[in-house]
Amino acid sequence: SYTHLQQAQPVRLGHYLMSWFWMLQRDSGRFKDAGKRTDKMPLGAGAVAGSGFDIDREFLADKLGFSSITENSIDTVSDRDYIIETISASSILMMHLSRIAEDLIIWSSVEFGFIDLPEKYATGSSMMPQKKNPDSLELVRGKTGRVYGSLMTILTVMKGLPLSYGKDLQEDKEPLFDTMKTIQGCLKIMEGFLELVEFDTDRMEEVIDRSVLATDLADYITKRGKPFRKAHETAGQLVKFDKKNKKLDVDIVSDILKEYDIPLDFFDLNESVERRSLPGGTGKKALLKQIADAKRIIKG
Amino acid sequence: SYTHLQQAQPVRLGHYLMSWFWMLQRDSGRFKDAGKRTDKMPLGAGAVAGSGFDIDREFLADKLGFSSITENSIDTVSDRDYIIETISASSILMMHLSRIAEDLIIWSSVEFGFIDLPEKYATGSSMMPQKKNPDSLELVRGKTGRVYGSLMTILTVMKGLPLSYGKDLQEDKEPLFDTMKTIQGCLKIMEGFLELVEFDTDRMEEVIDRSVLATDLADYITKRGKPFRKAHETAGQLVKFDKKNKKLDVDIVSDILKEYDIPLDFFDLNESVERRSLPGGTGKKALLKQIADAKRIIKG
Amino acid sequence: SYTHLQQAQPVRLGHYLMSWFWMLQRDSGRFKDAGKRTDKMPLGAGAVAGSGFDIDREFLADKLGFSSITENSIDTVSDRDYIIETISASSILMMHLSRIAEDLIIWSSVEFGFIDLPEKYATGSSMMPQKKNPDSLELVRGKTGRVYGSLMTILTVMKGLPLSYGKDLQEDKEPLFDTMKTIQGCLKIMEGFLELVEFDTDRMEEVIDRSVLATDLADYITKRGKPFRKAHETAGQLVKFDKKNKKLDVDIVSDILKEYDIPLDFFDLNESVERRSLPGGTGKKALLKQIADAKRIIKG
Amino acid sequence: SYTHLQQAQPVRLGHYLMSWFWMLQRDSGRFKDAGKRTDKMPLGAGAVAGSGFDIDREFLADKLGFSSITENSIDTVSDRDYIIETISASSILMMHLSRIAEDLIIWSSVEFGFIDLPEKYATGSSMMPQKKNPDSLELVRGKTGRVYGSLMTILTVMKGLPLSYGKDLQEDKEPLFDTMKTIQGCLKIMEGFLELVEFDTDRMEEVIDRSVLATDLADYITKRGKPFRKAHETAGQLVKFDKKNKKLDVDIVSDILKEYDIPLDFFDLNESVERRSLPGGTGKKALLKQIADAKRIIKG
Repeated sequence: SYTHLQQAQPVRLGHYLMSWFWMLQRDSGRFKDAGKRTDKMPLGAGAVAGSGFDIDREFLADKLGFSSITENSIDTVSDRDYIIETISASSILMMHLSRIAEDLIIWSSVEFGFIDLPEKYATGSSMMPQKKNPDSLELVRGKTGRVYGSLMTILTVMKGLPLSYGKDLQEDKEPLFDTMKTIQGCLKIMEGFLELVEFDTDRMEEVIDRSVLATDLADYITKRGKPFRKAHETAGQLVKFDKKNKKLDVDIVSDILKEYDIPLDFFDLNESVERRSLPGGTGKKALLKQIADAKRIIKG
Repeated sequence: SYTHLQQAQPVRLGHYLMSWFWMLQRDSGRFKDAGKRTDKMPLGAGAVAGSGFDIDREFLADKLGFSSITENSIDTVSDRDYIIETISASSILMMHLSRIAEDLIIWSSVEFGFIDLPEKYATGSSMMPQKKNPDSLELVRGKTGRVYGSLMTILTVMKGLPLSYGKDLQEDKEPLFDTMKTIQGCLKIMEGFLELVEFDTDRMEEVIDRSVLATDLADYITKRGKPFRKAHETAGQLVKFDKKNKKLDVDIVSDILKEYDIPLDFFDLNESVERRSLPGGTGKKALLKQIADAKRIIKG
Repeated sequence: SYTHLQQAQPVRLGHYLMSWFWMLQRDSGRFKDAGKRTDKMPLGAGAVAGSGFDIDREFLADKLGFSSITENSIDTVSDRDYIIETISASSILMMHLSRIAEDLIIWSSVEFGFIDLPEKYATGSSMMPQKKNPDSLELVRGKTGRVYGSLMTILTVMKGLPLSYGKDLQEDKEPLFDTMKTIQGCLKIMEGFLELVEFDTDRMEEVIDRSVLATDLADYITKRGKPFRKAHETAGQLVKFDKKNKKLDVDIVSDILKEYDIPLDFFDLNESVERRSLPGGTGKKALLKQIADAKRIIKG
Repeated sequence: SYTHLQQAQPVRLGHYLMSWFWMLQRDSGRFKDAGKRTDKMPLGAGAVAGSGFDIDREFLADKLGFSSITENSIDTVSDRDYIIETISASSILMMHLSRIAEDLIIWSSVEFGFIDLPEKYATGSSMMPQKKNPDSLELVRGKTGRVYGSLMTILTVMKGLPLSYGKDLQEDKEPLFDTMKTIQGCLKIMEGFLELVEFDTDRMEEVIDRSVLATDLADYITKRGKPFRKAHETAGQLVKFDKKNKKLDVDIVSDILKEYDIPLDFFDLNESVERRSLPGGTGKKALLKQIADAKRIIKG
């Protein structure tokens, strides 16, 4: 996995993909919470003081499928929280999608080569016959701006607006409807894309510089009782040598290996990921539990 | 009460003030929901793959007062949802405060004269000796921009950021801390202001143009079986006459009153508000119930 | 005129209205500057490296009415500055219109009564027969959010976008076109409104509390050689008395008037505005010069 | 050069770097234009109506180094355009820097390897000894959010604010000062970074897939009189074959080469860039002229 777009530590692809699940899981929670606060029938507020006609609001709410009724006619007429909260949750969702899209776009470059763009979600260039562009992903990333913009629109409209109603509020529907349409479209694109995309795991393994195991090495040395600072330094030296030669020169590092009694399979990537087996880590058992938890949540 | 800053319908001041309660009540719900999603211990994610040390994350979470642990180390390192969601909830809160402030500022003008600014929350002018400015309220209204700005800051920082960590994320703390400080300060100002402010209800009654009862009149005529369109028209004519003479000329409208058998106390404001007695309306019984409901909610 | 929505100092209505001119004058300058930077022909950039066909770009630019050609094909393909700069100038324009609208909305309230809404730009209420709402002005104020939102959209889209072209840029046209349409519509509404609106200058004079002259009084006393602090204090005392009696009690203040040798017409509003005759002030001569300057600018 | 982060067409590195110049050149123009509109002395506006003291504003402006004086005292007190315009120009500048930073961050990844991070502007990881992170660049990219946020802050503060002054305006200074400090810091970082960074042009040439010449091929065939559609198709087929074999199989494409009488050095990258020699193109002569133009502009 990458931090700063620099190889950081080896993780299982499944662990990486599951990180998306938890992002979207929180999004789902936000939409539910917003829905809960929206689920109140406004009818009966009249122009502002409450209707003068004798309506059974509770009965009407029940018939129309609302859980309850709004509590104050002035607030009912002036409240647009449900719009802002929904667009706000949508903004965070789009932010997530933009990050996922960004990773996939970078991965689709020739230089990375981690994924091959599904034909259906890539476009040929009108001018450049050799190109296959990640248009769908870029569109999703770009649409983030649209939803952020809608959030700013409705927040600006409402700022400092005298109670209860002003014609300004007419500007409330378009940002909401546009946002709903946008997130539905983007989710559909991402869903379709992910169904078809193929990850080139061989390429991923190929590019992994063994120096990503430096953290493991430092951890290991620390566990042997050396101060972390010293361990970090030793691991760092090892890595510098490695970078120059582009691969681990086992002869030269053997002193270090012997000094700390490091097993032969230490630099095996599978061993590395298995060393991260805490709950939430990339180790196999932890990952399987994570996936099981996720499935349980989806089933509700 | 006002819609479009034009007198709309008479409401009780208490009903108006209670509309603030429900706005803030929703804010409270949003902060609670955000807190619920934040309440997961991140420790143990390591650099990104999960810590390589043998920590009992569940135990640690319990000791540190977290309800549970984060589920995925990559997500843990890259997630800033809790910051965005908190600033987003704060933006809606500030929007509410800006609307309340706006009403109070307008009410404090000589022309409205509905409130007299408490000395403690007003400032004399350095140049104009006669002035008492609603500085505190304006400051609260202005601070709305600050929180909206912080929301846009963190949303922009996160947009399209590759997983998992980038130094960009260093820009996450200042918007959050500044927002927390701002909303705490603004809530304190509003609390102090509202403890001291006195509403000039005599002045409020004085300025109420009886034409605000036109809706009541139209409703009344409709209930007598006339189509709403016709009722609206009749009420409108009555009002036009009234506006010219600045008060109701009872002699002239007597024909209308007789025709629809309208009782003598119809144009009494108290009668009017009592005609709005649905749940959520401004009628006394409905209002008392509303206040009782609110008290119950505060007690939890 | 008002500061903090509290009566501050008497100014001529014309001086107030001219303040709008200078706001819009700066807007005009910003659009011109943006236009200047936009006026470069992009044709000939090809896909990104420059066209491979032999085109005379200078000739083509001349024929198409551009002043010059873009200087770098990569920049040409990736640049959207002209969109952001135009929407940014539009945001400031809309901010100005929202402030003008806000003043007019407040002035149209029964409590202020400074303007009577032109029928064409006010709407009757569907529910409340007596109301005439400043819908057009509120709509203009609300549309501000729309343009701010578009600015945030395009800024977000462009943030961190790798050079040169990404499909994200497809989101560039809608915010621009929507903004152009919005500002044209709003300017038309304001133009039509201002042609028809009538200012009730009698009412304006009527509500002016003579205490607004306190600054004049303090200035006057200062000029007689007293320290400003002392003058401010004396003027303040005079004002407090006045506020209680709702008008100047000439008998009681005569001591002060005599002490400082204040002429009888000091509290005349016309005298007051004439005392502000610096360039840019509200005095008649200064105002006429200001209007003449403005006319000269409009003529170009 | 890249479009969609996919190799598009070969360009000279110098041509790419010059695209940055023109971005920053427009920024410079915007700051100058904003400065021009800011360069008016506000002193003498008094509280709002104009000062009551006899000041020679023109004289004072001259002494203080202003080019002229503000034209209207009400506007002077309420105007904050110069702040918004400056932050707006700064937002576009930061957007540019974020794009430059994004490219450099991607280029610094092991997979691209186009630049080696200068030690001074990269940071070692506290946990991962092997890493050299592009912290400075990420920080610049992240700071974009900060400036966008300040823009939204001041726009929100000003929206719908009654003329002339409100305490809300106290929120004007912090966004401006913070923005000034931020852009100065970011420009300094970028300047220092670019002085030290070394571009690995060998690596750049190495990764260029010859399929990027497909556009050249299509252009060439078109010039021979074939319809562009047909040319695009032919070039596309050639490229597909190439991609599979990872390099041009000269034997197999010889038919095409012969058919269209394509010279042997056609697939030489230098030849390709020279084919783009229009003004603004990546050809050597065009590029040298571009650089000369830029130098002339810098000298003023």
